[in-house]
Amino acid sequence: MNGTQTPLRVAMIGYAFMGRAHSQAWRVAPRFFDLPLDPEMRVLVGRSRDRAEEAARHLGWAEVATDWREVVQRDDVDLVDICTPGDSHEEIAVAALEAGKHVLVEKPMANTLAEAERMTAAAERAAASGVRSMVGFTYRRVPAVSLARQMVADGRIGEVRQVRCQYLQDWLADEQTPLSWRTDKALAGSGALGDIGAHIVDLTHFVTGQRVAAVSGMLETVIRERPRAESFSGLGGVAGTERGPVTVDDVAIFTARLESGAPAVFEATRMAWGRKNAMRIEVNGSRGSLAFDFEEMNVLQHYDADAPAGEQGFTRILATEPVHPYVSAWWPPGHGLGYEHGFVHQVVDLVNAIAAGEQPTPSFADGLAVQRVLDAVEASHADEGRLHRISENAQTLEGAAR
Amino acid sequence: MNGTQTPLRVAMIGYAFMGRAHSQAWRVAPRFFDLPLDPEMRVLVGRSRDRAEEAARHLGWAEVATDWREVVQRDDVDLVDICTPGDSHEEIAVAALEAGKHVLVEKPMANTLAEAERMTAAAERAAASGVRSMVGFTYRRVPAVSLARQMVADGRIGEVRQVRCQYLQDWLADEQTPLSWRTDKALAGSGALGDIGAHIVDLTHFVTGQRVAAVSGMLETVIRERPRAESFSGLGGVAGTERGPVTVDDVAIFTARLESGAPAVFEATRMAWGRKNAMRIEVNGSRGSLAFDFEEMNVLQHYDADAPAGEQGFTRILATEPVHPYVSAWWPPGHGLGYEHGFVHQVVDLVNAIAAGEQPTPSFADGLAVQRVLDAVEASHADEGRLHRISENAQTLEGAAR
Amino acid sequence: MNGTQTPLRVAMIGYAFMGRAHSQAWRVAPRFFDLPLDPEMRVLVGRSRDRAEEAARHLGWAEVATDWREVVQRDDVDLVDICTPGDSHEEIAVAALEAGKHVLVEKPMANTLAEAERMTAAAERAAASGVRSMVGFTYRRVPAVSLARQMVADGRIGEVRQVRCQYLQDWLADEQTPLSWRTDKALAGSGALGDIGAHIVDLTHFVTGQRVAAVSGMLETVIRERPRAESFSGLGGVAGTERGPVTVDDVAIFTARLESGAPAVFEATRMAWGRKNAMRIEVNGSRGSLAFDFEEMNVLQHYDADAPAGEQGFTRILATEPVHPYVSAWWPPGHGLGYEHGFVHQVVDLVNAIAAGEQPTPSFADGLAVQRVLDAVEASHADEGRLHRISENAQTLEGAAR
Amino acid sequence: MNGTQTPLRVAMIGYAFMGRAHSQAWRVAPRFFDLPLDPEMRVLVGRSRDRAEEAARHLGWAEVATDWREVVQRDDVDLVDICTPGDSHEEIAVAALEAGKHVLVEKPMANTLAEAERMTAAAERAAASGVRSMVGFTYRRVPAVSLARQMVADGRIGEVRQVRCQYLQDWLADEQTPLSWRTDKALAGSGALGDIGAHIVDLTHFVTGQRVAAVSGMLETVIRERPRAESFSGLGGVAGTERGPVTVDDVAIFTARLESGAPAVFEATRMAWGRKNAMRIEVNGSRGSLAFDFEEMNVLQHYDADAPAGEQGFTRILATEPVHPYVSAWWPPGHGLGYEHGFVHQVVDLVNAIAAGEQPTPSFADGLAVQRVLDAVEASHADEGRLHRISENAQTLEGAAR
Repeated sequence: MNGTQTPLRVAMIGYAFMGRAHSQAWRVAPRFFDLPLDPEMRVLVGRSRDRAEEAARHLGWAEVATDWREVVQRDDVDLVDICTPGDSHEEIAVAALEAGKHVLVEKPMANTLAEAERMTAAAERAAASGVRSMVGFTYRRVPAVSLARQMVADGRIGEVRQVRCQYLQDWLADEQTPLSWRTDKALAGSGALGDIGAHIVDLTHFVTGQRVAAVSGMLETVIRERPRAESFSGLGGVAGTERGPVTVDDVAIFTARLESGAPAVFEATRMAWGRKNAMRIEVNGSRGSLAFDFEEMNVLQHYDADAPAGEQGFTRILATEPVHPYVSAWWPPGHGLGYEHGFVHQVVDLVNAIAAGEQPTPSFADGLAVQRVLDAVEASHADEGRLHRISENAQTLEGAAR
Repeated sequence: MNGTQTPLRVAMIGYAFMGRAHSQAWRVAPRFFDLPLDPEMRVLVGRSRDRAEEAARHLGWAEVATDWREVVQRDDVDLVDICTPGDSHEEIAVAALEAGKHVLVEKPMANTLAEAERMTAAAERAAASGVRSMVGFTYRRVPAVSLARQMVADGRIGEVRQVRCQYLQDWLADEQTPLSWRTDKALAGSGALGDIGAHIVDLTHFVTGQRVAAVSGMLETVIRERPRAESFSGLGGVAGTERGPVTVDDVAIFTARLESGAPAVFEATRMAWGRKNAMRIEVNGSRGSLAFDFEEMNVLQHYDADAPAGEQGFTRILATEPVHPYVSAWWPPGHGLGYEHGFVHQVVDLVNAIAAGEQPTPSFADGLAVQRVLDAVEASHADEGRLHRISENAQTLEGAAR
Repeated sequence: MNGTQTPLRVAMIGYAFMGRAHSQAWRVAPRFFDLPLDPEMRVLVGRSRDRAEEAARHLGWAEVATDWREVVQRDDVDLVDICTPGDSHEEIAVAALEAGKHVLVEKPMANTLAEAERMTAAAERAAASGVRSMVGFTYRRVPAVSLARQMVADGRIGEVRQVRCQYLQDWLADEQTPLSWRTDKALAGSGALGDIGAHIVDLTHFVTGQRVAAVSGMLETVIRERPRAESFSGLGGVAGTERGPVTVDDVAIFTARLESGAPAVFEATRMAWGRKNAMRIEVNGSRGSLAFDFEEMNVLQHYDADAPAGEQGFTRILATEPVHPYVSAWWPPGHGLGYEHGFVHQVVDLVNAIAAGEQPTPSFADGLAVQRVLDAVEASHADEGRLHRISENAQTLEGAAR
Repeated sequence: MNGTQTPLRVAMIGYAFMGRAHSQAWRVAPRFFDLPLDPEMRVLVGRSRDRAEEAARHLGWAEVATDWREVVQRDDVDLVDICTPGDSHEEIAVAALEAGKHVLVEKPMANTLAEAERMTAAAERAAASGVRSMVGFTYRRVPAVSLARQMVADGRIGEVRQVRCQYLQDWLADEQTPLSWRTDKALAGSGALGDIGAHIVDLTHFVTGQRVAAVSGMLETVIRERPRAESFSGLGGVAGTERGPVTVDDVAIFTARLESGAPAVFEATRMAWGRKNAMRIEVNGSRGSLAFDFEEMNVLQHYDADAPAGEQGFTRILATEPVHPYVSAWWPPGHGLGYEHGFVHQVVDLVNAIAAGEQPTPSFADGLAVQRVLDAVEASHADEGRLHRISENAQTLEGAAR
């Protein structure tokens, strides 16, 4: 930022929705935060040179390239930021890590458990030589969510007893919305489960400090056939007259046990008319509760069971005070932040970790833990809903979960 | 009410929490609604004559009795209103029906499936000779809930695609709250499941017009030991120094399929600090959504996917207009109703059905349908969460639910 | 209630909206509260015997009469409950008090200041011989409002610095709603100002413990002509083809000073589409704030400026706990109360005061204080909005208010 | 943005709170919107070269200068962006306009009416030669607010009948918060009135399309003495032991008439504990209502009096759909925007107007109209609250406002 700092030269692969959010983060982070390294938006990579060039101009990248394999080898690249669909994550991430580049990969980390395991192994090998890696669960960095984590860790609600967690959307509730890569199992791996279910599993891991240890799952594809897209505009396509099958779930619901045995309920859906981006978590502890809904992203609700009798109730904390995580860098109280600020904070934490020689979180191992849960949900669903244990996480579970 | 009408002479068995609510309903209903029969609060029945007499004085019953067996045979009793704990419901209800008395029984209808089945058989036999019976799921009669049912039936949200339903309380979240009959499996049958889970299953049946056809359940007893009560005051007890086991669940969560195959999530808990009586349902349909939370009992939220683009959103319908169910009998718009009004409306509907010679709802068969679901949840929990079908309800399910 | 108590024999004059609410209160109060006197619904008074008899049957009064002058002299009447329009309040109340009957009079206490002054004088004379009088500002007795008063009195928000108070309705927002006595200055005295503005002035007096000392007012009649009513049904009339003038305000707004000099804003309107009964107050003190909205009548919002940094926010107190005013007589937490419960609590407080030989509140003097404020608003409006002081209340004001 | 466009070279004077927000806007606007000119962050101007240089590095300006008089004459500057306190606005703006530079000036436009008048005259002279000017009322450009304006203009709520508008903050509610330029009449002109009252007057002008025509005002300084600041950190100062007087209001309340005669209530306060940035407006029209609160900045509430009976209620429009103003450039539905996005939209509209050769809004004349209202509030306050007419705006008022 001041010209005398060590630069951090970034190559970004992909430039759609996530590419736009990541570009904004790289651009804005050093303007509001004191960063120990100076991010440079060096090269944007896309398959079509023309479209990549147009994107680079708009998004502010210095140059473009079409071959990610070459780019991850370049000497003038320090970090590879992977914003492509999930089916290419493993290949790019492993190559970048092996070339000694730090890696930021969008979620879902991978389309299959095997891919996620190989990526995690590569990340662990690379870490030995100081190469860092991170998965893009940006919702952890919404100030109200970070505050929730902090309050749980500080014991403000006592022991975690129970969790309810939802991610409700409606962008596929209209049966005329056409097919896209997100409705295609080959490209997306799964539907609501991997796309937004992944977020609420990670959210639960983050806020409670515990992993999901067992799940009983049910998946559904409410709309099983849709028009094929004739053309594309913006994030969506334009419906044609031909129709084709939806090969992923649009509703994923599962009950679960955390490591401590605490029961939890999860729901991810794209069918909830009127819920636009309602990523919600409520944690009930032995001494209080916390609740968050992304549709009011600057608010954390807190119930303190130790408040004076007659004055108890959910307190609507507007997480826009200087004492709240990340907020002092921004605006005065009540001047709320928006969606992309989570991406800015992600860059801040990643750059700080790289400079400090520390492992940023969520690590690939954290991403793998989420992947294992999603995998178990699918397995349980195929097994008539029977409870499936996630071996690494379930060590303390016995006795609690039947 | 006017002295020239046929009276409906009521005997009420039990006089605790539910007895107080029922008494208020019998007293108030004829003052706000034109009833075809004139309810008389004839006799209150309790085991202890002294305490029954005190209750009768307070609650306004003409006389008291201590032997319900005798009362259900009396010629001057037309209807038996059962407000005792669940373990006595079958015996009283069957005797009353066989004596030709109409019966209103509090929920949960029974503690076991077998009891509920025998009660339903008795109700069906009695119906042949014009004797009516009803289960006290009063939440159906909250105006906003009745409105929800009506809007679903009228197709205002299209086809039902998905349901999420919760009943969150915190009255047992404090581990010092002592044991009571509600924490004792022998008396209560189950815990959160039967007490409040029953409500949300019936609520779903009522609002969607569909029954739950299959469930995958998980139960938990978060607090497994509590103080024994030394003495009782009001609805609760005073903790002593001795401790004993909690033998019922305090958390019950289950995923489900409705008859149409639509997925649903249910959660009943007594551990949710800050949620006092949050009985909630959200139904997502093909053309919109409806949402209700008893903590704002005069409000129904409606999302209309056919509203003009740019003006869509959840509409907060304050269900206090004369056009809303039951409301024209009460106050002007915005002058909300309270908890006990549902009981008043229950009396209104019951008396009207009796006078019209029609079957009131929810019938014992409706209550049995709920009982079957609760039973299947327990069976599924015992079977590691595997999906259990409820045979009567699951006819159209195959294909949808795996 | 138990037959051995001293009865309190009530005569109610008028039986429209308020008569129904008062009847419910007299009926229900002794069923939930231990009262020192036993209310008897002795006689209902109306001009038309037929309609009065029908009302008495519905509302549960023992007999009817058509001449209030005779009734207030009857030996078997202890208390006169005045539910007529404001233009008859003075005559009835003074006659009743002089006959030694306790009096409960609906708000607004009177249509003119002179009437209110004479009523207050009569009440003070009567009080000397143990005769009690009270004005029906029932909103004071909504538990959340009583709690607000208690918290201010206990210093929980420090010194009162500022008040904003609104009463928003929309029942006259439709220009086709016909004329009625409420739109006629001769009968109603004023419009939104006296009808609902009176409530928020009393609410402010009650919650803050201070009186309004000076006002700067503006009145408006947005809809100046309406259809005349052809016939009446329920609370409203049916529009005919003829039209006539509205002679009262439908919007009243005023800024004010409390006795301490604290600034306040008031707004009463019948033109606020979508606001059904939004009687709201927010009090900002030196150490916190309180906020109430009748459309969520069981909730009090509290902000505590002394809560830990980072955890501050408005706490949504669900005022349904046993520790909250009046609540322990009713239902468990979260089982909300409705509009008419305020009337029940009014009866409770009135009966207790009579039995204890104490002056109930709000007294006629309290009602007069409200009337003086309304009068000053009208005077200020006629004087181009200039600040008008209310002499009795403005003693400490100088210096603060210019 | 693409190197072939005409640049728009910007000089920004001042770099505190507003300077940071404006810098973010100049940086980000071209990344999300297609702009016809290419903004260049050419030069940042501050009195202290060292601090200006540090700011320029952080905020991303190419160079710094210390003398604004010189800068406004530079050939390589096209637009002057004034972010200094109000006492310097006139001098800088007039000089810049006379030098042929487009001007964006922060609100409040000026500290006195005379200054605002001279600025407006200068702007009108400059406009003749194609020089553009704009006042920074950025809240107009919050999507939900723009949507409100659009819906009023489209007649969606019929004729405007009534407005209530509040700007509630609490950042000076703590009496230990030290003095600053904002509490000093010489520098700030006024307190809550000019700082945040200005916003709600402009908001009303914008949303209703009408100007305030007459006001009856009341001002108060609740905390009349504060500690002097010993040192400064961030936006605030650190309290020392000495104390000094607050010379501006901290509460400003006024009733008003719009041009049509419609009554309105305004309140600006810094004393409302718990309200962080609650800039609210509610407009009641003849066919519906609209309500907005900046603390939920992505939401517009709409009540449609023509919706089907029984389904009416306030609809919570989440103004994050592609059809909503400005939103299609950003994220998918439900991914809310934050405070600074209004500044980005301001740059977009300003740059588009400059390129199109059109007058951007709000113009200096619009700013002057706000200033006249603030001035009238002060005059009315000094005149015991008497209604003061704003001559230019009050032409149609007679008859309506007394």
